[in-house]
Amino acid sequence: MTLAVAADLTKSNALALRYGASQIPPAGPWNDHIDLLMSHRSVRGYRPDPVPEGTLETLVAAAQSAATSSNLQTWSVIAVTDPAKKAAFAKIAGNQKHIEQCPLFLVWLADLSRNERLGAEEGVELASLPYLETFLVAAIDAALAAQNATVAAESLGLSTVYIGAMRNDPVQVAELLGLPAGTMGVFGLCVGYADPKAANEVKPRLPQSVVLYRETYGVSNESTLRAAYDAEMGAFSRRNEMAQDSWTQRVIKRMATLSAMNGRDRLSEIVKALGFPIR
Amino acid sequence: MTLAVAADLTKSNALALRYGASQIPPAGPWNDHIDLLMSHRSVRGYRPDPVPEGTLETLVAAAQSAATSSNLQTWSVIAVTDPAKKAAFAKIAGNQKHIEQCPLFLVWLADLSRNERLGAEEGVELASLPYLETFLVAAIDAALAAQNATVAAESLGLSTVYIGAMRNDPVQVAELLGLPAGTMGVFGLCVGYADPKAANEVKPRLPQSVVLYRETYGVSNESTLRAAYDAEMGAFSRRNEMAQDSWTQRVIKRMATLSAMNGRDRLSEIVKALGFPIR
Repeated sequence: MTLAVAADLTKSNALALRYGASQIPPAGPWNDHIDLLMSHRSVRGYRPDPVPEGTLETLVAAAQSAATSSNLQTWSVIAVTDPAKKAAFAKIAGNQKHIEQCPLFLVWLADLSRNERLGAEEGVELASLPYLETFLVAAIDAALAAQNATVAAESLGLSTVYIGAMRNDPVQVAELLGLPAGTMGVFGLCVGYADPKAANEVKPRLPQSVVLYRETYGVSNESTLRAAYDAEMGAFSRRNEMAQDSWTQRVIKRMATLSAMNGRDRLSEIVKALGFPIR
Repeated sequence: MTLAVAADLTKSNALALRYGASQIPPAGPWNDHIDLLMSHRSVRGYRPDPVPEGTLETLVAAAQSAATSSNLQTWSVIAVTDPAKKAAFAKIAGNQKHIEQCPLFLVWLADLSRNERLGAEEGVELASLPYLETFLVAAIDAALAAQNATVAAESLGLSTVYIGAMRNDPVQVAELLGLPAGTMGVFGLCVGYADPKAANEVKPRLPQSVVLYRETYGVSNESTLRAAYDAEMGAFSRRNEMAQDSWTQRVIKRMATLSAMNGRDRLSEIVKALGFPIR
């Protein structure tokens, strides 16, 4: 087998795992970096082994290398390894045991407080701080940074899972971390070595033609493609011994009731209490 | 020179470019993927050459491989190549010529409309749609996806720059793209081959100890380290023939006045008009 043929096989395998054999998009150029990105799976079980020395600094260097709006750098990250603190976070997140198991738990902060301290020291009021725009910039830039850290971690053989459930109780998260006003834990990230028992396949996603549009937004065949994806997710769930929900049922379960929001329907008032007026 | 020594040199070079020689963090494990992440720089000048066939699908496959909250997949992306449309986006963004130059302009959408259509077809009202939490999930998941696409593009020798200025006028962006209610262009992304004249160095970031905390948020030496970073950014600006602002002056220029927000101080009402009540 030539190298080019081997590379084509890797690519078609990666696309088949991500989309199912019947929905492979006509992807073009490919390489090892893209293989790494395609192989992502969230892992919810960890061995206790610590991450190697200097890993945290490597991940943060990757994170800081992501773009940041106008170089404002309106995010921070807190590395948590203390078992008692991780247990408290697991509880906030509805008893997600992997937060206790993982050796390194990163809480990513939207952080306008550093810029505010700069303004205070320079005697300048930063008029843009109270606006939704500025909060959104901080949350988005934290996400860009965290995703780079995730890619770096996975390239080192580590596994990860994002923990949006930090937003179940951002006030308690702020208390546990001693956060100043103008900062908020936007999400957490477990980092560690996967417990082999927690291994699962790459999760299929919606067909590209439902997510990617050209020139204008234009829905076509969405119901048909959703049905195809429901079947794909059903087969995936059976193979991985997960609850046998279709995507349709999963979306309805997560989005139809306020109780499924686990308190996050209060986020708007909580964000204000944490020092983001989101005007 | 042995391979290990060569790899160590690559690592220390990458860290010196990102942090300046006096603020190199004690990073640990390293590899080619991390080198790629570290080498990111935003590029604001493009050659007209189109991207190779299938590149768009490769980038979107990488994007869809990023984590998405509860697999809700609340984002979409629109690929724009039409010169007239790119010119209109450049104008919205305050005449950013690189939007016209780049062969591929991606507009990343927070998209709750697909889930809403699902609910409507299934006869279920999705009670969580109007909340700030759900809008935030959509914006964050769009960012995670876009960052994977960015890494994939850069791995293929393409350059990128995020365009937050789509938020200068999200209503006009929605009109240009024919967006339904419950979708919003969160940011754009130029993709293409860098014009050699637009090449610049990796931009230094704040020292790690100002951004990374352990166990709790704890500021120390922030003013001193900010002064060191101001000097680093001053030297960077001189070397790259940019306006010689310190970081401190840059933050003040961008954040001290509402006029510097270019209309984004209205984002809160605009987001509501686009179908996100952000309750």
